Amino acid sequence: MKTIAILGATGYTAVELIKILLRHPKANITALTSREEIRPVSAVHQSLAGKIGLTLENLTPKEIAQRAECVFCCLPHTASAKVVPELLNYRAKVIDLGADYRLDSPKVFETWYDAQHPDPTRLGKVPYGLPELFRTQIIGADLVANPGCYPTSIILPLAPLLQSDWIEPADIIADSKSGVSGAGRTPKLTTLYPECNESITAYGIGTHRHTPEIEQILNKTYKGEQPVKIIFTPHLVPMDRGILSVMYAKPKKPANQNELLEVLREFYRDEPFVHIVEHLPATKDVSGTNFVHITVRVSGGWVIALCVVDNLIKGASGAAVQNFNLMFGYPETAALFA
Amino acid sequence: MKTIAILGATGYTAVELIKILLRHPKANITALTSREEIRPVSAVHQSLAGKIGLTLENLTPKEIAQRAECVFCCLPHTASAKVVPELLNYRAKVIDLGADYRLDSPKVFETWYDAQHPDPTRLGKVPYGLPELFRTQIIGADLVANPGCYPTSIILPLAPLLQSDWIEPADIIADSKSGVSGAGRTPKLTTLYPECNESITAYGIGTHRHTPEIEQILNKTYKGEQPVKIIFTPHLVPMDRGILSVMYAKPKKPANQNELLEVLREFYRDEPFVHIVEHLPATKDVSGTNFVHITVRVSGGWVIALCVVDNLIKGASGAAVQNFNLMFGYPETAALFA
Amino acid sequence: MKTIAILGATGYTAVELIKILLRHPKANITALTSREEIRPVSAVHQSLAGKIGLTLENLTPKEIAQRAECVFCCLPHTASAKVVPELLNYRAKVIDLGADYRLDSPKVFETWYDAQHPDPTRLGKVPYGLPELFRTQIIGADLVANPGCYPTSIILPLAPLLQSDWIEPADIIADSKSGVSGAGRTPKLTTLYPECNESITAYGIGTHRHTPEIEQILNKTYKGEQPVKIIFTPHLVPMDRGILSVMYAKPKKPANQNELLEVLREFYRDEPFVHIVEHLPATKDVSGTNFVHITVRVSGGWVIALCVVDNLIKGASGAAVQNFNLMFGYPETAALFA
Amino acid sequence: MKTIAILGATGYTAVELIKILLRHPKANITALTSREEIRPVSAVHQSLAGKIGLTLENLTPKEIAQRAECVFCCLPHTASAKVVPELLNYRAKVIDLGADYRLDSPKVFETWYDAQHPDPTRLGKVPYGLPELFRTQIIGADLVANPGCYPTSIILPLAPLLQSDWIEPADIIADSKSGVSGAGRTPKLTTLYPECNESITAYGIGTHRHTPEIEQILNKTYKGEQPVKIIFTPHLVPMDRGILSVMYAKPKKPANQNELLEVLREFYRDEPFVHIVEHLPATKDVSGTNFVHITVRVSGGWVIALCVVDNLIKGASGAAVQNFNLMFGYPETAALFA
Repeated sequence: MKTIAILGATGYTAVELIKILLRHPKANITALTSREEIRPVSAVHQSLAGKIGLTLENLTPKEIAQRAECVFCCLPHTASAKVVPELLNYRAKVIDLGADYRLDSPKVFETWYDAQHPDPTRLGKVPYGLPELFRTQIIGADLVANPGCYPTSIILPLAPLLQSDWIEPADIIADSKSGVSGAGRTPKLTTLYPECNESITAYGIGTHRHTPEIEQILNKTYKGEQPVKIIFTPHLVPMDRGILSVMYAKPKKPANQNELLEVLREFYRDEPFVHIVEHLPATKDVSGTNFVHITVRVSGGWVIALCVVDNLIKGASGAAVQNFNLMFGYPETAALFA
Repeated sequence: MKTIAILGATGYTAVELIKILLRHPKANITALTSREEIRPVSAVHQSLAGKIGLTLENLTPKEIAQRAECVFCCLPHTASAKVVPELLNYRAKVIDLGADYRLDSPKVFETWYDAQHPDPTRLGKVPYGLPELFRTQIIGADLVANPGCYPTSIILPLAPLLQSDWIEPADIIADSKSGVSGAGRTPKLTTLYPECNESITAYGIGTHRHTPEIEQILNKTYKGEQPVKIIFTPHLVPMDRGILSVMYAKPKKPANQNELLEVLREFYRDEPFVHIVEHLPATKDVSGTNFVHITVRVSGGWVIALCVVDNLIKGASGAAVQNFNLMFGYPETAALFA
Repeated sequence: MKTIAILGATGYTAVELIKILLRHPKANITALTSREEIRPVSAVHQSLAGKIGLTLENLTPKEIAQRAECVFCCLPHTASAKVVPELLNYRAKVIDLGADYRLDSPKVFETWYDAQHPDPTRLGKVPYGLPELFRTQIIGADLVANPGCYPTSIILPLAPLLQSDWIEPADIIADSKSGVSGAGRTPKLTTLYPECNESITAYGIGTHRHTPEIEQILNKTYKGEQPVKIIFTPHLVPMDRGILSVMYAKPKKPANQNELLEVLREFYRDEPFVHIVEHLPATKDVSGTNFVHITVRVSGGWVIALCVVDNLIKGASGAAVQNFNLMFGYPETAALFA
Repeated sequence: MKTIAILGATGYTAVELIKILLRHPKANITALTSREEIRPVSAVHQSLAGKIGLTLENLTPKEIAQRAECVFCCLPHTASAKVVPELLNYRAKVIDLGADYRLDSPKVFETWYDAQHPDPTRLGKVPYGLPELFRTQIIGADLVANPGCYPTSIILPLAPLLQSDWIEPADIIADSKSGVSGAGRTPKLTTLYPECNESITAYGIGTHRHTPEIEQILNKTYKGEQPVKIIFTPHLVPMDRGILSVMYAKPKKPANQNELLEVLREFYRDEPFVHIVEHLPATKDVSGTNFVHITVRVSGGWVIALCVVDNLIKGASGAAVQNFNLMFGYPETAALFA
């Protein structure tokens, strides 16, 4: 049994994390922090009524580490990297659900996040928490960088196709569609109900911060001569949760659908959470779960890979618990087969 | 042709008003105000792109009156009553879409709106802008108090049934369900997409500010010995717009559905916007229009009246233009048969 | 470990049931039936991809009983009662999620369901599967009638208030709002997406088949002299799942909110799935769970009780598993704390 | 004033058409047909209550032509082409909202629509009803083929960029997202509310029947040496209406956003319904209108064009009335500035 703290427990990621950990046989939540809300967590998240008695607190890293063997950070960028070094010093293990430890280069971080990195020397040494690609590095690690929601849905289908040399690494298009919870729980006009309901829009074309993360990880797994280049178009879809990513890539050699499905099936044969399907998957098929459904099509001279995940589970809290399980030696699927 | 100003032009009510007035043969919008946004109105409301070139301005009442013969106030409570006296002095006619001139008593206003009324002596003399009940007072008026969205949907079906002595005035229940646009365009947690999507909740039971307005107007039209008493339960429904109000009242005498439908049909026989229907109406049936669909059922010892309106049109901007038409002598339906 | 069959496995209730049972430590699904679809269940419900290998089959009661110690019937009315006697003969235990065994009187059944009851002698002897009120009868039973979704949300808040003599049994109003999954998975115009999206409507006022069920159960638990009379107004709300029921009743004696909350808290003190809350609950608070949130208000001379449940879980499949647990002596909450 | 018949008046396209024509100063609807429903049109479409008294009828082409100078066909494919020749013989003008007269080649029609064309000799001679590109052919025409909803949203942004030689004609990707009304009003599982709500999915990749239409029209306006090749991925989005199409094309020469915006602005300078915007448009911006909002981005070596339309208005009924106006010499925008 491990004691657990969640930092930044007022958001959508945190409430999902709490629900998963409440059914985890080896997790004992002992601290929930917030800088603004000092009240019972079940008052902030009414769906927790009767399930957890903890009150949100504003705690120092030292106080957190005294209470928790494992800390999940659901904090805005740069906020994690300001407390993580101290938490690690105090011997807590940390899973960072934010962006601070995903990129290898402090300079790339600065460029895309418009801020100096508070803990630059650690960059490049932190495992990227996508067990399907980096499991051996995650097992037993002290700090893991949990992937972004979009990157998970884009990297998982592309990595096998790139590694097996079926698609060109350049000029890949990732057209992704996300539910609104991905935009967070801070009230703003763009995610007000009457603004985004009954409407779909693209946003952040060419400027979304997940772009360098996707390219970095794909380059790492591809190891080809040519760099992987992605143009990434995220969309806001009128639904709570779920991401559908549709990737368009040029085949390196004549390809047919069955061959590519077989490549994917082989690559993910032993993965408990990745299913290769033949139909075109809907986000609803994986809603509320840690599962990933992937398929591929060959049409009009393009390879088209499609992937659905729940942005809050496999795209955030579920993946975080999957990493927790690997870091502490528990069965990888514990608490995740809901 | 009348020149027109809209005060508080950044909200959902204002954008609907602009769209209706743009197709009005006798309306010429000459000023749009905002205290915070000083930029083209089509930048604030992207659906106006290419339709109107005006820029939002922060104007004094005098400046407004110099530009406009008619002023539509879409301002928070007390804000209207602070500028209306001056606007009237400058000979502008005013349609107030807010709550400031709906109640007759400054004291009742204070109790429910928790604020002193800035223009108390005018209360009780301003026509209530529900033409179906107060048309003669509205024709030619200088100032009209546009009804609240919920009251419109509750008063219209009840007034005829009360007047014709079919239902008891006491213990009437109004269980109303509204789309989220009714809560306004200011970002807040309760109307954030992932909070209210896929969910329904009641709010403000016994405390909603439309309660005294409903009771006042029903008492005015009822003229019975016993006062009309309403318990009002509003709900937030995951949809942009529309209100369905379901009213439960005790019959004063044995009633059947056809008799009551006939009472309603007779009462609204010449009304262009009120349709008495036999089926149970859906909010979608009147979405985007100034129409009102009403029906009635008799079941289990209750009279049940049902009414649907579009909260932004017949519940706000459409009614305002209907009043505008009456105040200035235009055909009542001008610009409203969309 | 018990072997389990689900009859009528193509609907929304069945897919939720399968998901719950897949995580149940003592359940082993061995048969899934359908009269029309003979293909892998994961082809019908894509969200089951990779989770269950079973194929839908058209089986006789005998074949079913040979494979399963417990049978969950998700069949249309009269279809259950045609197979249940035989299943019981073959020593299978049965949980009927349909309406066939809920009513005590064959005559009432005939009136409301417009069909003769295929198994009339068993009526009146089958426990009603609401453990919070009928636990002792359910424990060890061979056949249980799982409650309707609306009745669950209406009976649970009213039963304690009636029993403790705080509210009048006559003239109770139940204004209920349900997500669209409650209408089933058979394509029809009324539940087509563009028909019910962005719209709310009442339906079946005074004619909904859950009415006699609600009255029967409330009368059973009330045991007062006067009969309980309900007027029931269901609504279709544009959301997948969830029911909010708002009940209006006249107090028998002067009541305040805290007293009534205390009555409810006391009544459900040891119930694992019923939470009495002080805020107005939203359906989202219990979405996807077996939990029930209840509160009460006193306003304008009315007692107003509010209750939210997930129609597919506590209103159907979750309650069914809760009953399964009681019938077979497993912990009542097994597989239900998701 | 022209008398008008609408064939196939039970669908979503027809009800929008009726609403537009009801406010058209020169249109008089005299016949509405259906093969199955013989009842008042306002019983089928409740939003028409009180607005139109006509009853749906099953009429022969001769009867239709006796009643109407202009016929709008909202019929399934091949059904239009079976009645159009006769209607034209009887001197009615026809606007076909279906697919029968959009393709030039009977063979291509057969391949994609899996049916023999009933009126093959007329193919290739019917103007394509996109006035922005083919106005001169539409003016005064007897028969016009109204464009598909997806093609409108894809052709309008691409045609100017192709004609002006800014983008390569090969390997263009069109990733389109549509509201559910585009799938029609016949109940089917895929468009049942609980199936498509809270979910997004791609469908018909490489097989959607709008593909040859898009390529044919783009090739016609491009007139380049290389053929235009599109890979088209439609998606179903949980909303009633609206299409967002995002097109990815390779620039033929170094391009920047402002140059391309200027190309588009210049091309559509005098068009009343096409607005070139700088922001990323949302489908809501044009919802319920005949307007088209287009923008363009240059990023990562791609030209990305984005376009939003209302699938039922500019994508169907609005365009049909725009064509009607041109065919009969009325102002092109009559009834369309809602």
